[in-house]
Amino acid sequence: MVPTHSPRADDPAYRAAITDLLGVLAYGELTAFTRMAADSDLAPTLRLKADLAGLAAAEYRQFANLLERMREMGVDPEQAMTPFVATFAAYHDRTAPKGWLEGLLKAYVGDGIAKDFYREMAGFVDEQTQAVMNHALEDGGESEFVVAVIRDAIRADPTAAGRLALWGRRLLGEALSHGQEVAATRTAMSTLLVGGDHDLMEVGAMFTRLTEKHRERMARLGLTA
Amino acid sequence: MVPTHSPRADDPAYRAAITDLLGVLAYGELTAFTRMAADSDLAPTLRLKADLAGLAAAEYRQFANLLERMREMGVDPEQAMTPFVATFAAYHDRTAPKGWLEGLLKAYVGDGIAKDFYREMAGFVDEQTQAVMNHALEDGGESEFVVAVIRDAIRADPTAAGRLALWGRRLLGEALSHGQEVAATRTAMSTLLVGGDHDLMEVGAMFTRLTEKHRERMARLGLTA
Repeated sequence: MVPTHSPRADDPAYRAAITDLLGVLAYGELTAFTRMAADSDLAPTLRLKADLAGLAAAEYRQFANLLERMREMGVDPEQAMTPFVATFAAYHDRTAPKGWLEGLLKAYVGDGIAKDFYREMAGFVDEQTQAVMNHALEDGGESEFVVAVIRDAIRADPTAAGRLALWGRRLLGEALSHGQEVAATRTAMSTLLVGGDHDLMEVGAMFTRLTEKHRERMARLGLTA
Repeated sequence: MVPTHSPRADDPAYRAAITDLLGVLAYGELTAFTRMAADSDLAPTLRLKADLAGLAAAEYRQFANLLERMREMGVDPEQAMTPFVATFAAYHDRTAPKGWLEGLLKAYVGDGIAKDFYREMAGFVDEQTQAVMNHALEDGGESEFVVAVIRDAIRADPTAAGRLALWGRRLLGEALSHGQEVAATRTAMSTLLVGGDHDLMEVGAMFTRLTEKHRERMARLGLTA
């Protein structure tokens, strides 16, 4: 992805936008870490408990990298994350998993949407921030175990496929509706996202791309989106 | 601490003992990770939430290092950890924190006792395992924030000191009684721990040293043990 402009860290509009972006990404990683770690307690085997804990730990590393980038830029992490606390609380409240498989699918889907969003945004940020975001995208093998677990679960109980497909739609719907709320209220970030030239239609187009990626991800699990 | 003998990885008694030791340490780290991550949700500020998440992430790194050592030795991690699942479940059930400060003190006390136990054991294991254990001991700055938080809490509400002191005694008591249970039932490990020459009296002496270290740790927080 090629930057549409070269953001300057001392441009006040860019600083406001990047503060929001780093804040929303960091708080998203932090709450993903907490939820995955808690949900790892539901795992049916020690191996799977350790695997989900490993995915949670990867989210924490990304959180820590984003925090470091904020500090380099002189951005206060607590201030940057605060606007997004209520949104993530609402998302997690509305997507509290009932059981291990729902928790696992939530971890996989949420991590996938977050990574797609990193890819969408990476072209609009300064080089150093881009490096941090690319680093998060490389740190990706931790979620691969989920594919086999979900496929095995469906093989063992074909009725699980319908329930999990529905759950996946629910997760995407909640993620997008909360994302839309963020896009509508954090206009500095939305403006950055669409390159400064367009309106919220562009945000809608991005959400369409995220939905398509979600569909492909669900298909890898053997689920219809 | 000087090894009392040079354990050989192919000695069956040593293998049984080290399998238990790595299993109990690893599962302890994994459950500490999960509990701390979950308890970070109780934090009153984003900063403290991130700090406790950081301590949890450090426990995960130690878990991952122990797992790697098990795999190097051809030890199956799931089998090694299984004997300790019930013990840690009982410990965490009996020490479920009521509120943020109890969770924080539990994290600090538990991490401290675990590190003291690493120090006690490091002299009895082969060099490569010793290196993994020393690595865990170096990885220690993540818990320092707790000292200021507990001291501030006591300053703001002096009645908290008595309650937290009591909670600390409770935590130590539960840790030692579950530790004694492990020592009594996992005799290969207990034999390793006391150098092969002595009886369970030596285990008792170690518990006395752990208690003294706990007292010093509580004093740093401004609490009587």
